[in-house]
Amino acid sequence: METSLLAEWEATEAVDHHCHPLRRWPFPMSAFELRTVFSEALDQRVIREHTPCTAAYRAALRRLGDELGCSPVEEAILELRAGQDPATYANLLLGRSRTGMMLLDHGFGGEDAFTAAEHRAQLRIPQREIIRLESLAERLLLRCEGPGEWFEAVRSGLRAAVAEGAVAVKTIVAYRSGLRLRRHPADAVTHEFSWLREGALRERTPPRLNSEAICHTLVFEAAAACRTLEVPLQVHCGLGDPDEDLALASPLGLRELLESPALAGLKVVLLHCYPYQREAAYLCAVYPDVYMDLSLAIPLAATDGTRAMREALGLCPWSKLLYATDARRLPEAYFVAATLYREALGAALSELVETQVIDWDEAAEAGRRVLAANAVALYALRAS
Amino acid sequence: METSLLAEWEATEAVDHHCHPLRRWPFPMSAFELRTVFSEALDQRVIREHTPCTAAYRAALRRLGDELGCSPVEEAILELRAGQDPATYANLLLGRSRTGMMLLDHGFGGEDAFTAAEHRAQLRIPQREIIRLESLAERLLLRCEGPGEWFEAVRSGLRAAVAEGAVAVKTIVAYRSGLRLRRHPADAVTHEFSWLREGALRERTPPRLNSEAICHTLVFEAAAACRTLEVPLQVHCGLGDPDEDLALASPLGLRELLESPALAGLKVVLLHCYPYQREAAYLCAVYPDVYMDLSLAIPLAATDGTRAMREALGLCPWSKLLYATDARRLPEAYFVAATLYREALGAALSELVETQVIDWDEAAEAGRRVLAANAVALYALRAS
Amino acid sequence: METSLLAEWEATEAVDHHCHPLRRWPFPMSAFELRTVFSEALDQRVIREHTPCTAAYRAALRRLGDELGCSPVEEAILELRAGQDPATYANLLLGRSRTGMMLLDHGFGGEDAFTAAEHRAQLRIPQREIIRLESLAERLLLRCEGPGEWFEAVRSGLRAAVAEGAVAVKTIVAYRSGLRLRRHPADAVTHEFSWLREGALRERTPPRLNSEAICHTLVFEAAAACRTLEVPLQVHCGLGDPDEDLALASPLGLRELLESPALAGLKVVLLHCYPYQREAAYLCAVYPDVYMDLSLAIPLAATDGTRAMREALGLCPWSKLLYATDARRLPEAYFVAATLYREALGAALSELVETQVIDWDEAAEAGRRVLAANAVALYALRAS
Repeated sequence: METSLLAEWEATEAVDHHCHPLRRWPFPMSAFELRTVFSEALDQRVIREHTPCTAAYRAALRRLGDELGCSPVEEAILELRAGQDPATYANLLLGRSRTGMMLLDHGFGGEDAFTAAEHRAQLRIPQREIIRLESLAERLLLRCEGPGEWFEAVRSGLRAAVAEGAVAVKTIVAYRSGLRLRRHPADAVTHEFSWLREGALRERTPPRLNSEAICHTLVFEAAAACRTLEVPLQVHCGLGDPDEDLALASPLGLRELLESPALAGLKVVLLHCYPYQREAAYLCAVYPDVYMDLSLAIPLAATDGTRAMREALGLCPWSKLLYATDARRLPEAYFVAATLYREALGAALSELVETQVIDWDEAAEAGRRVLAANAVALYALRAS
Repeated sequence: METSLLAEWEATEAVDHHCHPLRRWPFPMSAFELRTVFSEALDQRVIREHTPCTAAYRAALRRLGDELGCSPVEEAILELRAGQDPATYANLLLGRSRTGMMLLDHGFGGEDAFTAAEHRAQLRIPQREIIRLESLAERLLLRCEGPGEWFEAVRSGLRAAVAEGAVAVKTIVAYRSGLRLRRHPADAVTHEFSWLREGALRERTPPRLNSEAICHTLVFEAAAACRTLEVPLQVHCGLGDPDEDLALASPLGLRELLESPALAGLKVVLLHCYPYQREAAYLCAVYPDVYMDLSLAIPLAATDGTRAMREALGLCPWSKLLYATDARRLPEAYFVAATLYREALGAALSELVETQVIDWDEAAEAGRRVLAANAVALYALRAS
Repeated sequence: METSLLAEWEATEAVDHHCHPLRRWPFPMSAFELRTVFSEALDQRVIREHTPCTAAYRAALRRLGDELGCSPVEEAILELRAGQDPATYANLLLGRSRTGMMLLDHGFGGEDAFTAAEHRAQLRIPQREIIRLESLAERLLLRCEGPGEWFEAVRSGLRAAVAEGAVAVKTIVAYRSGLRLRRHPADAVTHEFSWLREGALRERTPPRLNSEAICHTLVFEAAAACRTLEVPLQVHCGLGDPDEDLALASPLGLRELLESPALAGLKVVLLHCYPYQREAAYLCAVYPDVYMDLSLAIPLAATDGTRAMREALGLCPWSKLLYATDARRLPEAYFVAATLYREALGAALSELVETQVIDWDEAAEAGRRVLAANAVALYALRAS
């Protein structure tokens, strides 16, 4: 049944509502480089010694081998790709990912990633931008004398970006001070702002937001702006690289944001979520404007990502579940994440058919919503 | 195998050890009304736009359509029910739920729910009452001058209710100040009591318990009374409506209650538990007088509720797992929750047979204990 | 497929990298005694009334009956064992557990457990020792005047033990003050040390470490020593007996230990982990020197232990997953835990084959690594 659902969805071009840009080509490619996009480790020893022993990486090699028609081992895949024109190869794999639209966070690609303009020029898939809140706020900080002026500058920045076509704002506050959001007194915000700004000026380094009062308050300010601008706020939840304390990354920490009457109508999108997918699904089930995906978890948790999707579809309405890869840098990442997401969706919806919750046609339709229709409505997307 | 277990259990009349009263009939029925009993959302937009896209609601429609012999869609079910006498229809569906006894929390039905006397008159199933701690305590608060007098009044109220036939006390402290119970100094309790009482008197509103010192202390006092009265204390854990912070609703927070030597022998029943069912099962495995159910999770988490039951039966002895629907208002709610609970139990116990842990006869017997015998012993129930 | 993997692994002698010594024989054996090694309850009522209704105990009886060729009930197993020479019987069952090497924590066996020398004399399996940190530190405390002297004595003790052949250090800080490790100011450590020492001297009782500053600091000190001595630090995480607060036992609490630059290269082994196995797997996926097992969870969570292993193999590289029983006292405990661990491993790796992540040969090899090769490398084991 899963197979027939996957076949049915071949016709559905997905909206990848959260991903990152490709690496600028040409570049020397290696097994090490390939492995890095299938791991969240920052330590090279993990990549060298352990990533080859993960279900995530083996699933990636297997799916790539099947698609490329070569042996599912690094050497064969690297050899095959070495003979191709990078743009052709990337567009081929991206095309095979059945992606109809990419919403891109350009704030995490690194120096060697394509700019937004380059990315649009190189990839045939229509693209929209997501504004990375903390990057914008850090860029604006030094030119502001106090938090009031700074928040106003952030609001202006968001307004301008949306006017230029950005469709969402994303916060990585989970990395900076955890997700247990709370309101902070104005003087604490002022104090942290001055401390941060003066340190950056003194040491001539770019400021890096990482204390609670300033990070949390920024999120509340941005949330209010998103509500006014009618764009969703994407929130990194759950797993990521070890810069983040996973103990502080449960989406349940967003309660004050979700319960705030002043923010009623704000659309909140929980990204990744694993291993807090049941908690995220709960929030989707009781708050009208909360959405979730399982990007990053799929492909990283591989077969357990499928289980996470089954768990999510316990409480989460399928009108609230979104499709995303969170892929970055290499076309292989997008293709593998896309393939595994569709497989997981097929398995999870098949389970609902097998347990007599819905029938096959309803499962097919639910899958189309997850892959595309939910995001089209949420982000008010139209073909470019 | 699951099918044969379900067939075997047809003869077992279950003890629904935690549910709420039906809505008083007749009343105008609608699709919206039907949906509300299969969701914990308080926001109408969730019910209108998203509940139809949940596994819980689809499973409910499917099970109802199968039972009523109509199409599993709202229109068909509503039309079929519209032609029936409400009492006949309710007694028929409740009868088909194979419920032999209902333990009822009358404190959550709302104004339009049957009173205990009405409920007994209208439903053929034998019934017993559960005392809702916070409701009782709030009713008694204004007539007391201080916390000592108030706790004494609560103890008297509990004693009187048990003398009149109540079989358990239930606390919803998870909603009011979270489940991370701890002892508070007497002066903090006195202070909060005065503040609450004076506010209520000044504003002529009923008092609402919601601060830690007073809520937690009330639970410890009630626990001591339950121990003396030899009735179990039911504790709402895990999911519920968004008035509750799910982050604070893990049953592991009850540790101080469970470890207290003064409370040795107190029977504690963890209600709902999801997504903390593994944690609840752990407590059942190590404390002699802790019990659990997965009501509300089943039916709300649908297929993932089945998985939750499989997880619970990892550590939880089947002599500690109880059956309940947590249903309210509409007969459909009881029937669907009952049906899905039995299905989940069948699937979970089948897994134990398939993995060569127990044989079919033992699975059948374990199921009978969960459905009825455990509750009969725990609440010392006899036929009325 | 699971069956063929299990058959393949018959040839693999496992390294049980964490277990406890057997009880000294002969001793009167009873059903009660048998049950105690398949439960973490400290209360006798749980053992008497509920352990027989657990999947763990039933799985144990079933596996024992199958192996011993008798009915899977207590009477038959006890009768069969009563007719045997204890040493022969123990060596037979231990041999059938396919254990090639035991790493033993001798600090938890109780007065009636074999000493290390006795254990080596009675059991044919090669053995190595694990140093129980808190026991060592408590033994040394009274002879030291202050924390500095005490930490130095602990370091010397660890150095001496390693010189005599110990292969790892184990901490049970989760039991003593929880796993949310943090650095404490020196004066807090000094204060707690004096308070603890003076109390023990005054009351002539052995000191028992149980306050945060002293317990956490001891772990950081021991971690530095382990790094220098090049032995892994084993950390009890997740479930255990109810002396521990499971809410404080998530391995995510170790973040400060894992992120400390001064401790780079320290090998950390997360023991048990359940129900935090996804969190533990995450740590294994991002930190180069973190390892995990699911001992105790398997066999205690029985069929859900298998699910836990499937979940762990989502993020955890199979080069980081270890095999252990955490068994103690009775040979039956080792045999059952070994059998169920292999079954769970077979089921989890079969799933990766079925979902086309790896092929059968790779699954067989991954299993061999988990059963033995990972531990041989991690603990630098050679045949004695």
